This record gives sequence, C-alpha cells and structure tokens, in this order.
Amino acid sequence: MTQHLVRIGIAGLGTVGGGVIKLLAAHGALIEQRCGARLRVDAVAARDRAKARDFSLDGVRWHDSTQGLARDPALDVVVELIGGAEGAARELCQGALDAGKHVVTANKALLAHHGTALARLAESKGASLRFEAAVAGGIPIIKALREGLAGNRISAIHGILNGTCNYILSAMQEGVRAGKPREFASVLAEAQALGYAEADPSMDVDGHDAAHKLAILTSVAFGCPVDLASVHVEGIRQISAMDIDYALTLGYRIKLLCISRCGTEGVLQRVHPCMVPESSPIAHVDGVFNAVITQGDFVGPSVFEGRGAGEGPTASAVVADLIDIARGLNVPAFGLPAGQLVARPTIPMARHAGPYYIRLMVVDRPGVIADVAACLRDEQVSVESMLQRSRNPDEAVPVVLTTHEASEASLGRALASIERLGTVLEPPHMIRIENL
Amino acid sequence: MTQHLVRIGIAGLGTVGGGVIKLLAAHGALIEQRCGARLRVDAVAARDRAKARDFSLDGVRWHDSTQGLARDPALDVVVELIGGAEGAARELCQGALDAGKHVVTANKALLAHHGTALARLAESKGASLRFEAAVAGGIPIIKALREGLAGNRISAIHGILNGTCNYILSAMQEGVRAGKPREFASVLAEAQALGYAEADPSMDVDGHDAAHKLAILTSVAFGCPVDLASVHVEGIRQISAMDIDYALTLGYRIKLLCISRCGTEGVLQRVHPCMVPESSPIAHVDGVFNAVITQGDFVGPSVFEGRGAGEGPTASAVVADLIDIARGLNVPAFGLPAGQLVARPTIPMARHAGPYYIRLMVVDRPGVIADVAACLRDEQVSVESMLQRSRNPDEAVPVVLTTHEASEASLGRALASIERLGTVLEPPHMIRIENL
Repeated sequence: MTQHLVRIGIAGLGTVGGGVIKLLAAHGALIEQRCGARLRVDAVAARDRAKARDFSLDGVRWHDSTQGLARDPALDVVVELIGGAEGAARELCQGALDAGKHVVTANKALLAHHGTALARLAESKGASLRFEAAVAGGIPIIKALREGLAGNRISAIHGILNGTCNYILSAMQEGVRAGKPREFASVLAEAQALGYAEADPSMDVDGHDAAHKLAILTSVAFGCPVDLASVHVEGIRQISAMDIDYALTLGYRIKLLCISRCGTEGVLQRVHPCMVPESSPIAHVDGVFNAVITQGDFVGPSVFEGRGAGEGPTASAVVADLIDIARGLNVPAFGLPAGQLVARPTIPMARHAGPYYIRLMVVDRPGVIADVAACLRDEQVSVESMLQRSRNPDEAVPVVLTTHEASEASLGRALASIERLGTVLEPPHMIRIENL
Repeated sequence: MTQHLVRIGIAGLGTVGGGVIKLLAAHGALIEQRCGARLRVDAVAARDRAKARDFSLDGVRWHDSTQGLARDPALDVVVELIGGAEGAARELCQGALDAGKHVVTANKALLAHHGTALARLAESKGASLRFEAAVAGGIPIIKALREGLAGNRISAIHGILNGTCNYILSAMQEGVRAGKPREFASVLAEAQALGYAEADPSMDVDGHDAAHKLAILTSVAFGCPVDLASVHVEGIRQISAMDIDYALTLGYRIKLLCISRCGTEGVLQRVHPCMVPESSPIAHVDGVFNAVITQGDFVGPSVFEGRGAGEGPTASAVVADLIDIARGLNVPAFGLPAGQLVARPTIPMARHAGPYYIRLMVVDRPGVIADVAACLRDEQVSVESMLQRSRNPDEAVPVVLTTHEASEASLGRALASIERLGTVLEPPHMIRIENL
C-alpha cells in the first residue's frame, strides 16, 4: 500500500527532538495512511550518546557530527532542532540543502538571520525548506499564510509570539487582580524555577525571540525578504505591577505584541509591550498560549490561537512539515520564490502614530500637571485622560495620562521635556496603546 | 516565467462566483507569482446571461448548461457554486470529475450527502476534490485539519458554523443587555430584511446548514466517511429572550454550537443551542463570525476564527483551493484516501451526558419546587442551582434550574415527569450547558 519511505535524520534530541520521535512512534500507521508514505527516523545527531532518554533509538544510526548527518546519503529529510543562528545549525541546514535534502527546522534565529539565503539555496536544489515549528509552536500559521490565505493581499499581522513573556505578564496580572502585586523580577525567577524561562532570559524577555518570529511572519505575509534588522524591539523588563494595575483600571491588558503592517509607504515591524482593550480577542490570550491575527483584503480578519511551545505542539508542527514533504507538497519557503521576494522600504518607528499611556512619578504639588500638560501641548500631543489616584502633598505620587493619537517622534520630544521638569522624579514610563 | 496555465470554469455567478472572478482579477499577478501558474477563468455557466453584473466576463465562454461546462475539454478545473445536494450541482461535480477535471466547491449540502462518493470518484480519476469554502467561510479549517494538524489524532472539534444563527443570537443578546429584549421572530425578520437570512430560513435556523458543515469537519477530523444522518440537530427557534437573560445572569452565553467527539466507543455529532461560560473563547465569537476549536493529542487546543460567509471570505477560500491545485498539491479530500475512511459507531444522543439548564413556567405556590425536585431526584439528576426571581402568588412565574452532569436519557425522563405536574404550565425549556 505504501508507495514510499521518507528517511529522516534528526539533529538535536532535546525536548522537541524527543517529541518528534514519540509522535512518529505513536501515530506512524495513521500518518502512513494520511500521506501514503512511511516516515522513518533513520539517523540522529546529538551531543550525548549515553544520556538516558524516554524514547527508543533502536536501529537508528548515530552521527557524532551534524555534518555527518547532513552528508548521510541514505536520508531524504534532515530535521534541524539544534538552535542558534550560526554554527552547527546553519552548517547543517546549508549542508543538507546543498546535498539536495529537504530541511525541516524549528530554528527561528537561523531563519530570521539567513532565511532568504536558505530559501534560495533550497530552490536551487529543488528541495523543500519548511519551518512551521519556528513560529507560534503548534499553530499552523505559516501554512495558513502561505496557502490557506494565499488569495489575499495581507496588510497587517499582529500576535503574541513569546510564551515566556505572556506567562510573566499573565502572572503579574493575576497578582494584581488577587491583591498581591508581584514585580517582573519575582515572576521571572518563578518562571525560571518552573522551566518556563531560560537561565539567561534575555532572548525572551527583551523581545528578541518574538522579533525573530515576527521577521519570519512578515516575510511570508508580505512577500519581502526576511529583515530582522528593521524590527523595532522592546522587551517587558520595564513593566511594573503598577502599570498592570492602571491598565486594568483603564480597561486594558498589557501584552508583548508583535505587529507588522504593510502599506504603500513600506513596512513597519515592531515588538513592544502594548495596552490592548479588554474587549480585544488578543487581550484574553493568556499564559503559554500564542495567537496570530491576520488581515487579508478579501478574507478580512482571521484569528489563529494555540500552544506556542512545548514538546507536543512543536512536534506537531515539525511532523506536519514532514507529512507535507511526504505528500510531495513543495511550496516556496516564504510563499514566493526567493528571487521574487521584494524588499520594501522600512518605516522607522519615529513615524509610528498611536495613542499612548504615560506614567510619571511627580511631586504632589499644584501646577505640576499644568507643566506636564504644557510639555505635551508644545508637541501637539493631546491628552485623553489623566489619573492621580492618591494624594501625598509635597511627596512623590504617580500620575497616569493617556493621549489621543500622536506621532512617536512628537511623543518622544514631549517625554524628554517632561523628564527635565524639576517636579518629575523619574524618567517617564510609556506604553503604546493599540486599539486592535 | 509562468510554467503553466490553469483553465477554470465557474458554474454559478451569484455572490461567491462574482467574488472569485473579482479576486482573480484583482490579484492575478500576485497569485501567478505565488503559484507559478496563471489562474484564468475561461468559461462560466449561469442561469441568466443578460443579468447586469459588477464584473467583466469579456472573453469568457458561456455555457447554458452545467453539463456543457463539465464536458468542456478546454478546462482544467470546475468551480461549483450552484448549491444544493442534488440536481445540477451534483451532476456537474460528477461529470467534471468523471472527465478528470479538478473540482472546487463551496457546496456543503452536496458534500454532506455525497462527499465520500465524490472523493472516491476524484481519486479514481486522479483529480482533486476541494471544498475549503464549504465550511466556515474564509477560515482555512479544512487545510488545518487535513495538513497543518495532520500529525495529531483529533479527539474533538466544536465550533460556530452558521453565521445567521450567530447573528440572531448576538442581536437577541444585545437586546437583552440594552434592556430592550427582542424575540427570535423579530430578529429573524430584521436579518431577512438585511440579507443575513434567507426568505426560507429553515436551513439556517433549524440547524441543517450547521449540520452539513459539522458532518464534513467530522469526516476530515476523525477519518470516517461523511455521516450526515447521524448528526443530532436542533435549531434556535425555541430560544427566548428570557433564556438569554437568564444565561447572562448565570454567567453564560447562548450559542448554536456544532460539537463532534471521537472516542473508543464511537462518534457523537450534535448541533444544538448551548450555554457556554462567559470565560470560554467561543462565547465571544459574535455576529457573522465563525470559529472552530480542535483538540489534538500532541498540539492541544487550536482556535481558528474568521468571517464565516460573504463574497470576500468565501472567494478567499475558493481561490486558496485553486492555488493549491495550481501548485500541484493533491491531498485526499477528507485527509485519508476514501477507501481508508473507517466508519465508526454512532453514539446516540441519549448517551450524551452533561449539565443542563431548565426553564419552567409554574404556578407560584408552596410545594411546586419540591415536586419538580422530586422528579429530578427520581431520575438521579442532581440540581446545581435554582432561581425564581419574581413572586406572583398563585399565578405563573418562571423558575430556572441548572443541573450537575446527568445523562440525556435520565434528563428526558425527568422532564417528561415534570411536564405532567399540574402546577407546571408549559413544556419545560431545556438548554444544554457546555463547559468548553
């Protein structure tokens, strides 16, 4: 019945590699029915051969080097689960594609830095380069953009793409709601203890991981080369429990959003904390869930939500790519042939415009608000609301303002003026409001 | 640059047919880049040749009969947008597949009745049968199940698949919230005036359209032949503003849900109004939006949401199928070859178990609740809450109860006993609670 055999090599036997092996073991017969081919893991490459593992490697060839795996002539597909933009992962993918093997990878850093070049290499060899697992875990968002919504011109995407940040912000929000506010550092330490955050959390909490994923999505959505350098990136270290408390009061939730828009003037890609209205669908994507919302000209808005990481969801995405390969599907990696991806002008963040939330620590004294308001007025920034909840004459009190739509450049100048006021005791805290 | 031309014939030039022609006209060059082939509408068949249309048919062959279109030797793909389970639509699809042409259809009734046979015919001819537009409008849910989640065993799906019912229930809810409760008949009449409901609304409001879609999804999700006859179907005509008001009070929303579960004992497919918790993602899918939530064993829950009908979203889905055909993708129509679809036992609705909402109109008199409670107790149905908001001694008052999990069969017997009580003035109203 089976028409063919797909011989798979896996580099990297961490959580995801183990998940892929377990999934193929669990559903081998079902998958064979679905794609008319047997998916068989024939070889692996990983660092520690002696390590105890909760899955069987019986009959599987072991390569001590990833280059050995890349060159193994008896493999059809290489699955790269090593990680990192350079070194072994990059060499493996290049080597495998060079040898005409299909490559499936979950490596967002590699794709964000070298995606277009790898796609070009894959095409020149007639091989597939697939990476559903690199963005939004188990959500089939790459397939949706590349195929399911392929009749549309996509004008915008936004999403929650980093589970660690979303977990931390959700936990901080729970704390505020329960009357036990917790600051970023404390929740991060807990997330690290639980294994939801890395020992070095910078990739996640400073927004870089999300930026990698957004750069990939932007390319697939808008048909431009992957352009990580143009992504404006801010992380969540500056978010305090006080901001989350004010957000709840104002009817918002704070999320680390990835937003990309493509218009006639160019593309603006940005990753930063946002306040989103409580009524927005994305406001309720909590914990380790990811979500992506796309805007297509014929289809309108589409929402995709699911688990953004972890053994099972990531293995699901890797295996979906393997099944596509077994079925003979070969769609260009970024939706268009690499040579037809068109670079578009980058819209600088300074040209962004939107409403803003501003939190100041000021001396509680008559006239302070008038001075702050004057700084905003001088830059044509219009105040929507002002909130000073506590009184503490001649001492420090927090004041919160929200603005109507203003340009990032104007707002930046106004905040610089505000910071210079003698009665303003800390640099202003600013969070962009997105009425999504 | 273009490697090939895909010659398309469209049968049916209503809203969706027009949308497909407009989409291909708007994005022809982009689509050609994306799939390396030109999608060209070469022929159409529709009833009224003279009708004024807001799109051009210049250079397009006109067939007066759908059979002429099916037999047109210079077509690669036929798009069937006629509708209906029998007659012209069925003959067209059979004829086109028989002639080895690929078929793209938005016809849920046809697929719900004859989907498996058509898939078998398509496979025997090496042709594609594709129907993304038949379920959930622009949401690429068929692709997600057939490809994106293909590494998983899917155990459950649920969704909102009928925009008309969702619009009516959303409008009724808005009415209650605004203090101006409106009944079903009045909102239906308005929906008809606005073009959101058909002159004969039965297909929509009685749940049949949703049942067609659920039967298709069930087949793709669980790998069984399409089995419309096994779907338990109830519509929304019995839902009153009073039920919606009580639902809000109890923290629920009322939705017409499509639910399908596959376990070791078999499959239960059902379409009926449900109360879902306010905190459930599906509770907030309002108006003309559709949503589908799938449960996969590796990926966990996945949520797909978007516009469920209309010119643009449906055209988006039809064109995605055309692009897949142009790209040479040919996946079995229901995810498995038709001969490998395995019929599973049908679990009868009587074996369903869950919590229930019951609304009674009773005489306001001591002892009535005790009699009702006794009827429930006799069938082992345990009461979770009871609510009698108004007093009206010796006159009619509504009483609402919610139960803990009970079997449908027990509940049915208990309701029959309750209806026989002299102090119960109307047949009980029952709505199933789904804690999704």
